[in-house]
Amino acid sequence: MAFSGELTIDIAALMRNYKTLDAMSAASCETAVSVKADAYGLGARDVVSALSEEGARRFFVATLDEAITVRNVLPQADIHILNGFMDDARDVYRAHNLSPVLNSLSEIELYRSFSHDCEEALPAIIHFDTGMNRLGLVSDEARILCDDLSLLDGIDLQFIMSHFSSSEEEENPINTAQYKRFKDLTLYFKGVKQSLCNSGGVFLSQEYHLDMTRPGIALYGGCAVSKMEEVIRPVVSLSAPILQIHSVKKGEYAGYNETHCFDKDGHVAIISIGYADGVLRSLANNGALYWRDYKLPIRGRVSMDLLICDLSAVPLQDYPVVGDMVEVLGAHQSIDDLAKDAGTAAYEIITSLGARYKRNYISDLS
Amino acid sequence: MAFSGELTIDIAALMRNYKTLDAMSAASCETAVSVKADAYGLGARDVVSALSEEGARRFFVATLDEAITVRNVLPQADIHILNGFMDDARDVYRAHNLSPVLNSLSEIELYRSFSHDCEEALPAIIHFDTGMNRLGLVSDEARILCDDLSLLDGIDLQFIMSHFSSSEEEENPINTAQYKRFKDLTLYFKGVKQSLCNSGGVFLSQEYHLDMTRPGIALYGGCAVSKMEEVIRPVVSLSAPILQIHSVKKGEYAGYNETHCFDKDGHVAIISIGYADGVLRSLANNGALYWRDYKLPIRGRVSMDLLICDLSAVPLQDYPVVGDMVEVLGAHQSIDDLAKDAGTAAYEIITSLGARYKRNYISDLS
Repeated sequence: MAFSGELTIDIAALMRNYKTLDAMSAASCETAVSVKADAYGLGARDVVSALSEEGARRFFVATLDEAITVRNVLPQADIHILNGFMDDARDVYRAHNLSPVLNSLSEIELYRSFSHDCEEALPAIIHFDTGMNRLGLVSDEARILCDDLSLLDGIDLQFIMSHFSSSEEEENPINTAQYKRFKDLTLYFKGVKQSLCNSGGVFLSQEYHLDMTRPGIALYGGCAVSKMEEVIRPVVSLSAPILQIHSVKKGEYAGYNETHCFDKDGHVAIISIGYADGVLRSLANNGALYWRDYKLPIRGRVSMDLLICDLSAVPLQDYPVVGDMVEVLGAHQSIDDLAKDAGTAAYEIITSLGARYKRNYISDLS
Repeated sequence: MAFSGELTIDIAALMRNYKTLDAMSAASCETAVSVKADAYGLGARDVVSALSEEGARRFFVATLDEAITVRNVLPQADIHILNGFMDDARDVYRAHNLSPVLNSLSEIELYRSFSHDCEEALPAIIHFDTGMNRLGLVSDEARILCDDLSLLDGIDLQFIMSHFSSSEEEENPINTAQYKRFKDLTLYFKGVKQSLCNSGGVFLSQEYHLDMTRPGIALYGGCAVSKMEEVIRPVVSLSAPILQIHSVKKGEYAGYNETHCFDKDGHVAIISIGYADGVLRSLANNGALYWRDYKLPIRGRVSMDLLICDLSAVPLQDYPVVGDMVEVLGAHQSIDDLAKDAGTAAYEIITSLGARYKRNYISDLS
């Protein structure tokens, strides 16, 4: 018995998901991977090592620290920093052979100067915003660049890219609008490779795959659309121990601030997991855990280190005992299921996974 | 410039808060501290070291791993494990001189057997549930124990305790009800020290302080009730860098899934922070960051590593530039303010603080 939850990352499933996503696009289309935020919370070192073994050669991260982590595992990989170029960290980009995604004209100018000073065409990707108004050259900046490609002189332009805002909404016309805006821009960049698709985009249309896809959440078992569920395997499972089982009486309350009143006598199990472990507070009176095939609704608020589950659905002969592990994520509840109950997305569920868990990385080979 | 946010923990303020909370109760009342969940996300090692320097001698944690962390910093402190006693970790409790909070009759029985086998009265606290139905002996169990105190033979009973469910709701009658239930139980435990108050309880009534208070969130700057704001100092500040500033046009959207449409032309700043850093997704279109005294509303969804802020409130002559740090938590926005916008409590804000930040621990002495 332990006080901590047990988090299992199925590396074999991760590798299979990469293979599946790679097989969805043409052989000429590269499948790069997004491993930012510590591989969406699952552990960048183990994840990039496995994906590399499965054939991934190109890795997208958000920050410089993340890039260095990947570089330390994979000396040969192409590593791109989505959050851009920091001119005062030139030495770091150079020492670790890191390539920025350039998001503005000013970043392009700084990077060009860096390339010039190195007397070498340094690698970069240019990111055009086509509808999110997040990172990337907005239309006015794009126009300036397209009108004067000499602004890129001295840069080894490896790809131009953009990013879908709503790729999990298959019928949303913004997807075709973004694709069209991006393709209009590509006309100015003859011979330069193109990339547009995140996980959702991979499932939208093969036409959008272009020269490189960049899946993230689907690798980790997230299925924003139902057609993903047919092919994507779950990667994350999580269980937590029962600390105590006790009776409750009709009319009594559960947890902080009396947000749940028991309408009959029964029993609850107190689970050693809470929002400090990433079980979001928004799951209060909303989510459930599982014991065998029985659903155990969360009663009252989620505490920092604890939550209260109702055992009403469990027949007495199947009652768990103290120390038994209940399922938080697994066969009965996917990261998307839990996200739905928490009013968020699977992305936030996995990037919030806490530091107290015992982490197991399993694969067919282990 | 960096891609990461900068998290500052004001150790001097933490120490002052301990002093303030300690001064609120009588000299005969000990002020223990709750440092579970890595000291509510702020870093247990630095926090317990500072609190010990300020006079704290007793530390409450949730798990065995957390207890060992505290023990490694403080060889002499009393350390209590709220989540209880694990019989299969007897050696660990013994080796590190850790004391469990016993939450059920079966835990008491196991611990008594452990004490017996050690031929020594081992220290423990007994926790009675008085209304939360979370951990602790429920009324039926309490009755059995009170009727037969020999069940405790061989245990060094240091305190009996309970926990308030709604201490930040000053007028809620459950507070007096819990106090009465607890005091009724204390009649059976002559000469045993008593403890009931979390942070909120400290502010409720001096009558409730008894022999020991156990504040947590107030140490870290959380003010669930307004009277706390008068005396409790903020401990956490957080800023994050601007990666890009660009124009937006009326009718365009911000971020994923087009959840915000700009109603006029303007500019946005793209900030290098997101929900993977603990800026909860529930802040989408809801929260704000600050640049100088200007409020920058979050537009659209919070991304994993990024968010989009509206610069409309900033006069052009005060515009920030790329690389400037904007305030997430600080003079303009407390952890309680941000929690309110996120639909949660300050506790979840700080326990969610991410791993990518540069962390600074500052004090008067540094």
